[in-house]
Amino acid sequence: MRRSGEFELIRRFLAPLATAAGAGRLEDDAALLDTPGDGRLVVTTDTMVEGVHFPGDGPPGLIARRLLRCNLSDLAAMGARPDGYLLNLALPGRIDDPWLEAFATGLAEDQEEFAVSLLGGDTVATPGALTLTVTAFGSASAPVRRSGARPGDRVFVTGPIGDGCFGLKAVRGEIDAPRLAERYWLPSPRFGAAEGATAAADISDGLVADLGHICRASGVAAVIDLEAAPLSPEVAALGPEARLEALTGGDDYELVLTARESPAIPVGRIVSGEGVTVVDSAGQPVPLARQGYRHD
Amino acid sequence: MRRSGEFELIRRFLAPLATAAGAGRLEDDAALLDTPGDGRLVVTTDTMVEGVHFPGDGPPGLIARRLLRCNLSDLAAMGARPDGYLLNLALPGRIDDPWLEAFATGLAEDQEEFAVSLLGGDTVATPGALTLTVTAFGSASAPVRRSGARPGDRVFVTGPIGDGCFGLKAVRGEIDAPRLAERYWLPSPRFGAAEGATAAADISDGLVADLGHICRASGVAAVIDLEAAPLSPEVAALGPEARLEALTGGDDYELVLTARESPAIPVGRIVSGEGVTVVDSAGQPVPLARQGYRHD
Repeated sequence: MRRSGEFELIRRFLAPLATAAGAGRLEDDAALLDTPGDGRLVVTTDTMVEGVHFPGDGPPGLIARRLLRCNLSDLAAMGARPDGYLLNLALPGRIDDPWLEAFATGLAEDQEEFAVSLLGGDTVATPGALTLTVTAFGSASAPVRRSGARPGDRVFVTGPIGDGCFGLKAVRGEIDAPRLAERYWLPSPRFGAAEGATAAADISDGLVADLGHICRASGVAAVIDLEAAPLSPEVAALGPEARLEALTGGDDYELVLTARESPAIPVGRIVSGEGVTVVDSAGQPVPLARQGYRHD
Repeated sequence: MRRSGEFELIRRFLAPLATAAGAGRLEDDAALLDTPGDGRLVVTTDTMVEGVHFPGDGPPGLIARRLLRCNLSDLAAMGARPDGYLLNLALPGRIDDPWLEAFATGLAEDQEEFAVSLLGGDTVATPGALTLTVTAFGSASAPVRRSGARPGDRVFVTGPIGDGCFGLKAVRGEIDAPRLAERYWLPSPRFGAAEGATAAADISDGLVADLGHICRASGVAAVIDLEAAPLSPEVAALGPEARLEALTGGDDYELVLTARESPAIPVGRIVSGEGVTVVDSAGQPVPLARQGYRHD
């Protein structure tokens, strides 16, 4: 199969995604962003490498949608609403036009789902691994930082913990759980959930690690009740070891929030000190083999 | 030599570059951008892969500065002033702390030179090639697009053509021209030069190709006078073939402008029709082996 040259590739697959006026049909050296009328412009960027951040032989449409959703999740963690994104593709020789078409179709689906437009980007060849970067733009009237957690806050999560790491096992065929595989490919950015929180982060490295980032930025400590962490039935069925693995597994893209009150699911509390402690139902600290999953 | 983990790497090498308040010491899921008080926010992004866009064994400080300057050049082409940038690094195993330190030192030099701040980014491991992405932000009170060229405009360039492609030959040791090698590594973004132009682009693919992009976006044609293109003495000394190669060589990061008048150097004119023609001193079309350099 052939692959279109850069300009043909842009014209065929990417320009149709550039629905915002400021994208200028991807013809200019740069995009013009419509800045929010009220509130702050919020920007985030993630790079994903095949074999490191996703299976390179996965369906291109799902690779595209996961790439976009993981970035949108960062906007949700900041209490922002999404507007648009830039896309940088470093493509190895094996990537052909049918792959690109399926990739663009996946993006188009999620552009509709989340009301965002492609704004620009860059497409290059690489002798190495498929490397995908999305830079997402949003706006927030009251941005939520990681530094606002205070002793007395409670800790909440927006949904099941562990679907990401066990979903990856399902994608790899290590466990039989098709619904978790879909959750791995299609995380749900939790827009609106961070509103009113004192601090928030999305769970990409694992609940313990990402709550740890909040604690470090806020100068506080946190206690997580092991039994309070919500698990999907498929994960709970794997036994008590899976519960601990879920807390440090990563790739969930649920949010972890600190607040006095929230409609989200309470899993712990903020206290004075440093670090994150997981405790059992008797209040005893549970030893952790690791804090979270690190891609680096 | 060891390489720091992601968080240590950010703390040691990148956080000191995040001087803007909205970067939040790189602690949050996203950066908050100060949007321009008047004018439009302008955004551009470039991905560079070692072995494709730059020699991977080059000095890390110069790799960093060229990466940043090539992006700033896109802002200059839009008639924008620079504000800040995001940095995405996909690092192969051989990249160690001394390399990262030299890379960050190069960025710090150019942050001072161009009054910009690091705003955020992402750092990941790759089994493949060193892959660097910068996304640069600026503001423009009157953005210059590629689509505004009209018959009767003249075509201008902001400086010598061919320093980029012959500079790369110098970097590779194929010719002896140390000043051109430095021009390859440290292009000069031409801020202010696009003001008042009807259209502009920076010369990354080659003068003929980039003027071609303007013509396509504007629905016009262009004629370039071969003898009018300004050449550096080192390039002119290489003979008449070099003159033609300079016009299609790329990597110059001078601007090509269309305007009625400009203080820049006139090299041709906009006419009705399609495409770019190069003519000799007798007005005869000169055959071109290629339109420009394509990295894809």
